[in-house]
Amino acid sequence: MSEPRDALCLIAAGEADSHIYYACRFLAPDPFVFLHVDGRRILLLSDLELDRGRSQARVDEVLSLSQYEDKARQRGAARPSLIDTLSVVLDEYGVTDLTVPGTFGVEYADQLRERGYRVRTKPEPFFESRIKKTSDEIACIEETQRHTEAALETALDVLRESEIRGDAVSWRGKILTSEDLKKVINVSLMEHDCVAQHTIVACGLDGVDPHNQGSGPIRPHESIVFDIFPRSSRTRYYADMTRTVVKGDAPDPLRRMYDAVLEAQLRGIELIRAGAEGQEVHAEVTRAMERRGFETGLVGGRMQGFFHGTGHGLGLDVHEPPRIGKAPWRLEAGHVVTVEPGLYYPEWGAVRIEDLVVVEENGCRNLTRFPKFLEI
Amino acid sequence: MSEPRDALCLIAAGEADSHIYYACRFLAPDPFVFLHVDGRRILLLSDLELDRGRSQARVDEVLSLSQYEDKARQRGAARPSLIDTLSVVLDEYGVTDLTVPGTFGVEYADQLRERGYRVRTKPEPFFESRIKKTSDEIACIEETQRHTEAALETALDVLRESEIRGDAVSWRGKILTSEDLKKVINVSLMEHDCVAQHTIVACGLDGVDPHNQGSGPIRPHESIVFDIFPRSSRTRYYADMTRTVVKGDAPDPLRRMYDAVLEAQLRGIELIRAGAEGQEVHAEVTRAMERRGFETGLVGGRMQGFFHGTGHGLGLDVHEPPRIGKAPWRLEAGHVVTVEPGLYYPEWGAVRIEDLVVVEENGCRNLTRFPKFLEI
Repeated sequence: MSEPRDALCLIAAGEADSHIYYACRFLAPDPFVFLHVDGRRILLLSDLELDRGRSQARVDEVLSLSQYEDKARQRGAARPSLIDTLSVVLDEYGVTDLTVPGTFGVEYADQLRERGYRVRTKPEPFFESRIKKTSDEIACIEETQRHTEAALETALDVLRESEIRGDAVSWRGKILTSEDLKKVINVSLMEHDCVAQHTIVACGLDGVDPHNQGSGPIRPHESIVFDIFPRSSRTRYYADMTRTVVKGDAPDPLRRMYDAVLEAQLRGIELIRAGAEGQEVHAEVTRAMERRGFETGLVGGRMQGFFHGTGHGLGLDVHEPPRIGKAPWRLEAGHVVTVEPGLYYPEWGAVRIEDLVVVEENGCRNLTRFPKFLEI
Repeated sequence: MSEPRDALCLIAAGEADSHIYYACRFLAPDPFVFLHVDGRRILLLSDLELDRGRSQARVDEVLSLSQYEDKARQRGAARPSLIDTLSVVLDEYGVTDLTVPGTFGVEYADQLRERGYRVRTKPEPFFESRIKKTSDEIACIEETQRHTEAALETALDVLRESEIRGDAVSWRGKILTSEDLKKVINVSLMEHDCVAQHTIVACGLDGVDPHNQGSGPIRPHESIVFDIFPRSSRTRYYADMTRTVVKGDAPDPLRRMYDAVLEAQLRGIELIRAGAEGQEVHAEVTRAMERRGFETGLVGGRMQGFFHGTGHGLGLDVHEPPRIGKAPWRLEAGHVVTVEPGLYYPEWGAVRIEDLVVVEENGCRNLTRFPKFLEI
């Protein structure tokens, strides 16, 4: 009887799954296998990916899937499945126990268990090191952030060039829309090799639903929420920033909301440091807005006030651990998190302000340089 | 004892998982639950997504996650997990058995099984209807395809404007690179609300590795493979096209490769119809190139010749069933598939030509209009 031996196992496409990309820095459109056993990092790649894997992947060994398929056939699998083939590799390395992320496909897990392997999930963060960013990773995030700011500046220039015509805004002789502003932002980002998806430019009532991407004409004297979170296609690292502006004059309630959100955001940033509890930061950010009279709750069956978290980690995913919200998370040096309180009231509109910070021993460093102002 | 009752269950983010998007046409950045039970399509959404879900999702009912969390607390879960909460819903509907896709997260599956639910995976295609495209879906794919062709035209215009200077190509006074051409393509697509990622512009030896995206200077008289597969951010449908060109004069072996690939591709398109076996189409495409003397196999440890499939289905994913390759797949009317043979030889370069077709009863309809030529 052999000793039990553990391996980390991932089966995913590097283009779609950031764990496997983090593990081996190899991008491929279709799922492949990563194993970490006895300190060795191993990939199992199809003929189509083999050469590229050997030159690009940061691993100790790249095995040929088709060679192991031949071995699986010798074991009697007429048409070997990926798991038939993987089990040949596992047996060669004496692996009996596999640790996988929660997102590991249940079909693969069931097939492995049927063959006698123990498959256990490990809760997030699956790779502890991934949550604490290295200086190289922070530099990548900052670079994406600079392009994000340039893109927002381009969109705000459009607003500056535009003219108010009654209850519409006119740009180059046409009614300016959310779609126009999103395109300006997304094209600017693409010019810097950053891919923006689901960019939010939400005016008035659209913005009151925090994930509404916005559509239709921009209206003057109403809130416009810009939330931009592209990924660099070179480095794969995200950035994330939100600003809220008004073309024209902000009505008083909106101005008071803006001041409350800004104060709460600055208070949150002030509290962030190694050892701080995310839960407490979120509670204090919430209280800062409540102190100014902005309450949260269901009104007529609809949530209003501040009903999302204060922030989230960011890196190879746009949402990753830690969280600054209702659940407990202790912040540590090297975490990169957003700080993005907001207020949402159907009668007044929406305000959200979001910066990106790196947690440090005695505070945090703001990676966002873009100024904060309401009227444009 | 109650009767067993089945439900389809998906837990995923609409932005990342095309099954759940297909099921409910709702996009959200974080995972949510879709159930199909007794003919009713049900979503379970957080407060943050509830209003938008009720207005946008194509389902019969949207349940409030937070209301069901309250019920889970009443059952004794102090801090209810998603599965604690989901199990309240399942019990209200009398669900005992869940059918999930193979990619369903093993962590959720294990938690459901621990609570006594049976969880079974269904092989692809999970939604049978998804593989056969409706005329609306085909129109969406065609629209993305038109933008793909416009983007390639823009890049070829750059090549036409460029001048050969020794062993380099000069554009607007600078050495033209793969990166320049990719940017022109990706920006053109973004101007049409299409998101291109991993676009391939691979010159010479780069192209010999079919998934190498290409980098560095474009060289004259060598093959340049353009493979472009964007997704429309409005409709979410992909397109996919490959063309191979040479700036300058194609050497004889490359011209012979081009003719062989084109002939094989046209032969493949000719064979595609409802009832055709993908495997046989692939075998015939392979033979067409072999008849012209182009062999496939390992040479010096590296694959050369034709060592990938002839085509793949495409829709809400860029790679989806069916496949035209070594595995059996019977083609049916309404399938949308690529036809993309290629030849790859380190000493000569690479040629791949790819069109997108809809399978019909008596043949197929080519959705690709872009001309095929080698020299530019």
